[in-house]
Amino acid sequence: MLEELRAALGPQGCLTGVDVPEAALSDASRSGRDLPLALLRPATVEEVSRALAICHRHGAPVVPQGGMTGLAGGANPAPGAIALSLSRLSGVEEIDADAMAMVVRAGTVLEVAQKAAEAAGFLLPIDLGARGSCQIGGNIATNAGGLRVIRDGMARDNLLGIEAVLADGTVLSRLTKVVKNNTGYDLRHLFAGSEGTLGVITRAVIRLRPLPGPRGTVLAALPDFASVLRLLALARATLPGLSAFEAMWRDYFAFSQSLLPAPLFADPPPFSVILEAEAGEALERLLETAFEAGVVSDALIAQSLAEARRFWAVREGIEMDAALPGLINLDVSLATGRLDDFAQACRAALLARFPEAHVSFFGHVADSNLHVAVAVPGGGETAAHTVDATAYGVVQDFGGSISAEHGIGTLKRDWLGCSRSGAELAAMRSIKTALDPKGILNPGKLLPPE
Amino acid sequence: MLEELRAALGPQGCLTGVDVPEAALSDASRSGRDLPLALLRPATVEEVSRALAICHRHGAPVVPQGGMTGLAGGANPAPGAIALSLSRLSGVEEIDADAMAMVVRAGTVLEVAQKAAEAAGFLLPIDLGARGSCQIGGNIATNAGGLRVIRDGMARDNLLGIEAVLADGTVLSRLTKVVKNNTGYDLRHLFAGSEGTLGVITRAVIRLRPLPGPRGTVLAALPDFASVLRLLALARATLPGLSAFEAMWRDYFAFSQSLLPAPLFADPPPFSVILEAEAGEALERLLETAFEAGVVSDALIAQSLAEARRFWAVREGIEMDAALPGLINLDVSLATGRLDDFAQACRAALLARFPEAHVSFFGHVADSNLHVAVAVPGGGETAAHTVDATAYGVVQDFGGSISAEHGIGTLKRDWLGCSRSGAELAAMRSIKTALDPKGILNPGKLLPPE
Repeated sequence: MLEELRAALGPQGCLTGVDVPEAALSDASRSGRDLPLALLRPATVEEVSRALAICHRHGAPVVPQGGMTGLAGGANPAPGAIALSLSRLSGVEEIDADAMAMVVRAGTVLEVAQKAAEAAGFLLPIDLGARGSCQIGGNIATNAGGLRVIRDGMARDNLLGIEAVLADGTVLSRLTKVVKNNTGYDLRHLFAGSEGTLGVITRAVIRLRPLPGPRGTVLAALPDFASVLRLLALARATLPGLSAFEAMWRDYFAFSQSLLPAPLFADPPPFSVILEAEAGEALERLLETAFEAGVVSDALIAQSLAEARRFWAVREGIEMDAALPGLINLDVSLATGRLDDFAQACRAALLARFPEAHVSFFGHVADSNLHVAVAVPGGGETAAHTVDATAYGVVQDFGGSISAEHGIGTLKRDWLGCSRSGAELAAMRSIKTALDPKGILNPGKLLPPE
Repeated sequence: MLEELRAALGPQGCLTGVDVPEAALSDASRSGRDLPLALLRPATVEEVSRALAICHRHGAPVVPQGGMTGLAGGANPAPGAIALSLSRLSGVEEIDADAMAMVVRAGTVLEVAQKAAEAAGFLLPIDLGARGSCQIGGNIATNAGGLRVIRDGMARDNLLGIEAVLADGTVLSRLTKVVKNNTGYDLRHLFAGSEGTLGVITRAVIRLRPLPGPRGTVLAALPDFASVLRLLALARATLPGLSAFEAMWRDYFAFSQSLLPAPLFADPPPFSVILEAEAGEALERLLETAFEAGVVSDALIAQSLAEARRFWAVREGIEMDAALPGLINLDVSLATGRLDDFAQACRAALLARFPEAHVSFFGHVADSNLHVAVAVPGGGETAAHTVDATAYGVVQDFGGSISAEHGIGTLKRDWLGCSRSGAELAAMRSIKTALDPKGILNPGKLLPPE
């Protein structure tokens, strides 16, 4: 099989043994340890097709890889698997200004595509911290969220067309730029978020947006969660360009702020919200209204980019990893109105099990997305497993999602039943079998064993 | 089987023979003529499940029906099929203001759901002409487009959660209100647009939006299609609340206007555009800029709702059906920048075949959606078939979609290959077989025979 693959892809397209770079072993979760049998690096769609056809004939498992920035282990090779990197299949093919659409190859680094869009006068509405190394194909395969969801949705919501190669090498290509297209089952949305288990995404058409105008950034202090919800409702109704609404619970704000040179609020309030919107009268009016109604008790308006960065530094908790060894960052979704009820229940459940633990909360409230920061002093893998079991149990009680953005991969696979019913899992398995009957695409990922 | 169904659903839930209302025979295309074996009217999700389990055991074909406003024959019963109406499974179950989400039953009439949202201070962002009789379940099953696509996308883009019953009666229920949810394959998007061939949608969670502010309506005259594209680019970049951008080619505008009491532009321009956006300075500035640049040669600004309605009356061509017997309205999508190239090629191809025909064009340009109005004097079904073959052939040459909004049903089924490859159709068939192995759900619809 390796000989066939070498013949099909050339020596640069099929690396084995010591030639396989370390980076192919694990995504950013650092949970992968196994050397793949080979690392394939096809440079064209045809090469992806040929490579998959060969692997399919041999029944060899194939693990698609993008920029390896995932956090769920989804791109880690299992022992003996063939890794298939899209890195050489890269580049922006076309920007169609009238259709506001970009045709782009899967291995293109997100930031490269963003800059190409910007040079043409547009915004590429997918953005996340890993922009400098993650790839468009991986963004789609994991349905990346990130920083623009509140305005423009998840990766799938910005996808006009897709090309993917099925397990047997069949190329499904529908690189359409049209917005409306009701011609049967939507294969875009089947591949988006399927984490490489249904097909290998090779190209995509991404919808572009107008470049946003100058933004204003506010850090507001609020007395309770009901006020957070009221401020959100006001912002949604009156700020057309609302581009961030990030809440920090007191525990998170106080701890994260304590790690930075100077405090923003000397007395950390029950809730802090970073709000970003188009600068202008509407933003000022909103703050006035919120003050008068007692929804906001204090507010800092960023007077410079540097000051806005100081707000975001607290939110991003950049010193937290160093201060809290073994920090776990859970990424869950719950109905927006229940985020604080969940936070209280989750905190109580975790502290009942680990009374010494750090537990704190922050989230993209408008997107129903909450992050739980948990650190158990002296805790290892067993403690981490208990944290997962405890927190995801509470998520299940609240009817939430155990993975808002990060996907399932291997690391959340055993908890998928907290968010999907047996009937849903069975439907997912039957779709998997229909498109990949030999089960060679990313086996062991996403779907738990029956 | 009918006895089992009567026992499961009661006499009100299972009608046969003369008790079956005429409305169950055909959707709005008036192409259905066959009486179903029975019309099932389940009132609960459990009854839908029980009814499908019975039909599945007997291998009986089931045709799901909503408000019967479709235009592609998708809800028409084949001879001997069981029709399953969702009309009794209706009502808004919940409006969650914090999550900006509505939980609604499939049989709810769209306008009823819209009014419930409005009473709670929100906009339900799905809207189409048939709002008074179409149903939410059908809107999702056909991925309805309509009047708000430019701002809020198609029906699927406003869907947070879904509940559907599979062919064998299995209930898949994920009525989530969360925006971010990366927990495996996205079943929402599989059922949306599947035209009842994969499952019967019973409930949904729809995302709500803030109520829009007052709007301004402009009718602009433009010298050429390049100007239409330039005005669109300006509008996208400077009007945050752009809610309509409808272009009429001269042939359409002139004919439609001639049927109304008084002309809007005495000399019909090459292109007319109806533009709607939030009233205010931005709209006025846009018009000034467009005038100065020669993009717009004339413009009427509606001074009242009545005047705006006069603009829309031309666009809607309300007198066209009477003036042009046998009028066909094709609904296709093409990359926005190529809409006029397509219009010229399509007009030439149709007039070559039918020199006496009326052929005219109008479209939702921002949504890449074009409508082709065709009337062949004295033409019957054969002429209509030739019109389809001719126009869809040109769509295929341009890489477009033969159905932007209307879906496939039976009436476009034989042309699906113009917009989907053999590999795509095979993938769609394998998904159909995976979820409905006996093929009882809406057989003969959407997918052409192999």
